[in-house]
Amino acid sequence: MTDTSLTSRLVELIFGQPEALRNSATPLYIQLQSLIQEAISQGILQCNDALPAEREIASTMKVSRVTVKRAIDDLVNDGILTQRQGAGTFVNERVVHELNRLNSFSEVILAVDKHPDSRWIERGVGLATSDEIQKLRLQPGDEVVRMFRVRMADDKPVALEHATVPRKFLDNPFGITGSLYEALDEAGIRPVKAIQRLRAVAVDATYADYLDIPVGSPVIFLERHGLLEDDTPVEHTRSHFLGDTFDFVTVIREP
Amino acid sequence: MTDTSLTSRLVELIFGQPEALRNSATPLYIQLQSLIQEAISQGILQCNDALPAEREIASTMKVSRVTVKRAIDDLVNDGILTQRQGAGTFVNERVVHELNRLNSFSEVILAVDKHPDSRWIERGVGLATSDEIQKLRLQPGDEVVRMFRVRMADDKPVALEHATVPRKFLDNPFGITGSLYEALDEAGIRPVKAIQRLRAVAVDATYADYLDIPVGSPVIFLERHGLLEDDTPVEHTRSHFLGDTFDFVTVIREP
Repeated sequence: MTDTSLTSRLVELIFGQPEALRNSATPLYIQLQSLIQEAISQGILQCNDALPAEREIASTMKVSRVTVKRAIDDLVNDGILTQRQGAGTFVNERVVHELNRLNSFSEVILAVDKHPDSRWIERGVGLATSDEIQKLRLQPGDEVVRMFRVRMADDKPVALEHATVPRKFLDNPFGITGSLYEALDEAGIRPVKAIQRLRAVAVDATYADYLDIPVGSPVIFLERHGLLEDDTPVEHTRSHFLGDTFDFVTVIREP
Repeated sequence: MTDTSLTSRLVELIFGQPEALRNSATPLYIQLQSLIQEAISQGILQCNDALPAEREIASTMKVSRVTVKRAIDDLVNDGILTQRQGAGTFVNERVVHELNRLNSFSEVILAVDKHPDSRWIERGVGLATSDEIQKLRLQPGDEVVRMFRVRMADDKPVALEHATVPRKFLDNPFGITGSLYEALDEAGIRPVKAIQRLRAVAVDATYADYLDIPVGSPVIFLERHGLLEDDTPVEHTRSHFLGDTFDFVTVIREP
């Protein structure tokens, strides 16, 4: 049983009085969207908060269920809200990853006041493949250190990271406990330039399991080539970041 | 019926001789991945080409199906390959969208020698919502032009674009036929700065229908605030780009 009076008060806190909607010529679903966005930016709705049920919004605001559904669907498509089967609609948590800065995972997570951590899946040393030779500008016969781990924020898995570093730069993969960039920094070879390439992909069963999300969930795949000042490649990292958590931000200024 | 001799020749063209795999200590699935990547970069496998079936690769290369599956799964997770239900595994087409440059959709598509086009879904003029007032720095009562269209490359839908421009900058949404940036350029108000925010989301049924892709497919949602030299907001655009087509690339150089 829902406490109707409480729910309708929450609806009014987010959406205001039904009469206000009527006094504007703007399509109702755009007005509802705008009000949800505003409620989020004012903190009325916070990360992981549940939105009132569509039928409650519709009846309190005196609009059709179709209108409410359209407003919510658009915000789900924009990654602002997320729908969990049988549980309802929630406000997504967002961690901002600045693409203009060369920050490590640990630094990105610390910036949102969470505790970064790792769970190792695999690590070892091996002969560089032809692909690694090309990406890290190595010679046939050179060795690489390969590290594959789940990255966590406050104990919740939020990313997967495959990092490959030429062995001449990092002898022992078992020496890395926290940030790879911190270890490279201590060795005086922290990358200062990078080429980053990202795209949206659907995770397969194995990765979904590591990340504790449903198979097929959208994630950001980010490939990074980290270079020293003289363009020597130091690392090649392939990461998968939860789509419902990470925002990647860039600022452009045309020359 | 498969022409086994032809298929096994294709397998060898991509993967070389089975004996070469045995002579390396690198895990077999990593070697296979590396060979597929190399075949793509050398043009042996091109965009939309089908990969030989897993069982063909396994039998010709004398490795287990599990090893082949792991190699392919990882490349699917990285967005290099895509699996289509019942049809097989294909090499993804990639269109590079440089995040360091303020290019229009039309310019990005022309750069890969394709023909950019649009199909209008909705366009009109309306009173700015509170959210638009905040994002475009307007006053209550100001009007905006809203444009929603499917963007195409060689007649294939590849993106959805919701653009909002203050009406003082663009009087008639029906005057836009091709690139919005071209129209803004002609009016002397093409943005020269932008803040871009992107994330991975799963498309809902309506958007999937516009883009002609399965519901839940991963797409990149990109939100852009375009500004003039003096920081006046000119446009607010929300775009959805097909995950299996677009790569977003940035170059970082630490100061």
